[in-house]
Amino acid sequence: MGLQVAQIGEGALIAALGKIFGQGKNVKNQLFGIGDDGAVLAPSSLATVATMDLAVEDVHFKTDWSTAKQIGAKVAVANIADIYAMGGEPHFLLVGISLTGQEEVEWVLDLARGIADEAKKVGAQVIGGDTVRGEKITIAITALGNTSEPIYRSGAKVGDQLVISGLPGASAAGLALLKADKRELFPEIVNAHLQPSVDGKRAHALISAGATAMCDLSDGLLVDVTRISEASGVGIKINLDHLNLSSLTKAGTSLAVDPMSWVLTSGEEHLFIATLPASAALPEGVLRIGEVIHGLGVEVSGEFSDAQISEKNTWQHFEK
Amino acid sequence: MGLQVAQIGEGALIAALGKIFGQGKNVKNQLFGIGDDGAVLAPSSLATVATMDLAVEDVHFKTDWSTAKQIGAKVAVANIADIYAMGGEPHFLLVGISLTGQEEVEWVLDLARGIADEAKKVGAQVIGGDTVRGEKITIAITALGNTSEPIYRSGAKVGDQLVISGLPGASAAGLALLKADKRELFPEIVNAHLQPSVDGKRAHALISAGATAMCDLSDGLLVDVTRISEASGVGIKINLDHLNLSSLTKAGTSLAVDPMSWVLTSGEEHLFIATLPASAALPEGVLRIGEVIHGLGVEVSGEFSDAQISEKNTWQHFEK
Repeated sequence: MGLQVAQIGEGALIAALGKIFGQGKNVKNQLFGIGDDGAVLAPSSLATVATMDLAVEDVHFKTDWSTAKQIGAKVAVANIADIYAMGGEPHFLLVGISLTGQEEVEWVLDLARGIADEAKKVGAQVIGGDTVRGEKITIAITALGNTSEPIYRSGAKVGDQLVISGLPGASAAGLALLKADKRELFPEIVNAHLQPSVDGKRAHALISAGATAMCDLSDGLLVDVTRISEASGVGIKINLDHLNLSSLTKAGTSLAVDPMSWVLTSGEEHLFIATLPASAALPEGVLRIGEVIHGLGVEVSGEFSDAQISEKNTWQHFEK
Repeated sequence: MGLQVAQIGEGALIAALGKIFGQGKNVKNQLFGIGDDGAVLAPSSLATVATMDLAVEDVHFKTDWSTAKQIGAKVAVANIADIYAMGGEPHFLLVGISLTGQEEVEWVLDLARGIADEAKKVGAQVIGGDTVRGEKITIAITALGNTSEPIYRSGAKVGDQLVISGLPGASAAGLALLKADKRELFPEIVNAHLQPSVDGKRAHALISAGATAMCDLSDGLLVDVTRISEASGVGIKINLDHLNLSSLTKAGTSLAVDPMSWVLTSGEEHLFIATLPASAALPEGVLRIGEVIHGLGVEVSGEFSDAQISEKNTWQHFEK
């Protein structure tokens, strides 16, 4: 057992975190970072995009399933994806962590490394935050980015194609494998749950293709497409018959689950859902899964029962 | 017992919160707010100031001591004060809340009202955030503001006066009264702990007077002045002999505590500590408590023992 947070105290912890996150000098567009009341960012001629996500131990992650680096990476990615989903480029993260004090210092530093690594991958930097004591580990991340042209959920037009930047389902499948204690059977699928990745280049490609509306897949395909439908005041028809589910089929068989249910409801994988003009060519790897129609609401066709959809249609944070 | 959060679900809760915070249209400098992946803020020719603070139930607040509105107000003020302390004007807040789901909906909406009220007082607005489930209530707030000229902790110069925007101590005294179950004796002092206020005009006055360094009183006078000393590479001499402690004396007597110990260590009251040029006239209500000298470290003189200082000198979040 290494040193615990309570043994080294807050000052030493913040100093160690500051080294991992960088001290914030000589950073693009940043005048001053960690170590004052707030971070100061240079003026920008672009609009700012600001998002916040919270992750709570035993609700959003379990320390016996995930490494500290995976947990940090997962929360960072959730935020970074929101910036891309608005048509923005992520630049800065603020990180708030509540700790019991009994954590090993190395565990906390690995958590910070997971956040810092994901930030670095996209050219962003941690510039501030807060450390406090609490009974459960909670991580709050605010991401700040810039955009010259924001993409909202509300821009979908009748006739647009509905597309997604990859096959969803792996996060839910990975969680199901973990719950069934079968993580060793399909390590790649489990990893997609424990440490989802975000592909900013795909977001850029969707914007270049003329995306009229966009969001990331946070709460499941049905929920997130419904949000685009509601925000844009249009109907959306989803057809999943042509999806190739082979990467999920074996895991589905091993758990006696229809993999299509994962496709419909899996969240937290941060693929991008967008609507594109009918004439737009699909960027590489992007799948067409439907179209925007007159009316309201989301219709789904494909090989699965209506009951399956309505049951899984909503994802409630506060359900027990 | 009213409706609980788990009974109305996340969608209805977010809709109700959206009404309290305002839907974010027609807000100064804000293109889009609550309801998308992120908020979008119009470009600004000024630097941005960004801060984050976390508050955890039973560590930073107790629901049997404070009303929901007081709790919301307290966390909002802590953030807003950080923006002022950097020489900025607060404009936007992102609010992340973890809830058990068992809270009454009205309690949560009152929490939001407390945040919204403090934001409104300073001309700021809640533009986004996150709601999640957790075992304890945790509130994370990110404040964003603008500044034409940031004031850092690192600018104190030898010969400067050390000043503070009011008499510190009430927050610690209020907490001591609550712990001793004597809240009814000194309700105003207790209120200073439960719902501290922030006076942006005093921050402005200090900046106009030429503040060379500034911070807010978050962790106690000795801790916060030490941070200015370290960041600026100067010594600071504090002399508290001339302070009029009469507002704290009766409470001190009733608890058999030297009120000077509250003055030295009370945090979370968000007064402003600044260094001003020797020639600067003190703004109204501002107290001179020392001067910047050659050397390093903080010396304190006044009627109290050295032991008292060294014991209280550091405030450790992770100490048990």
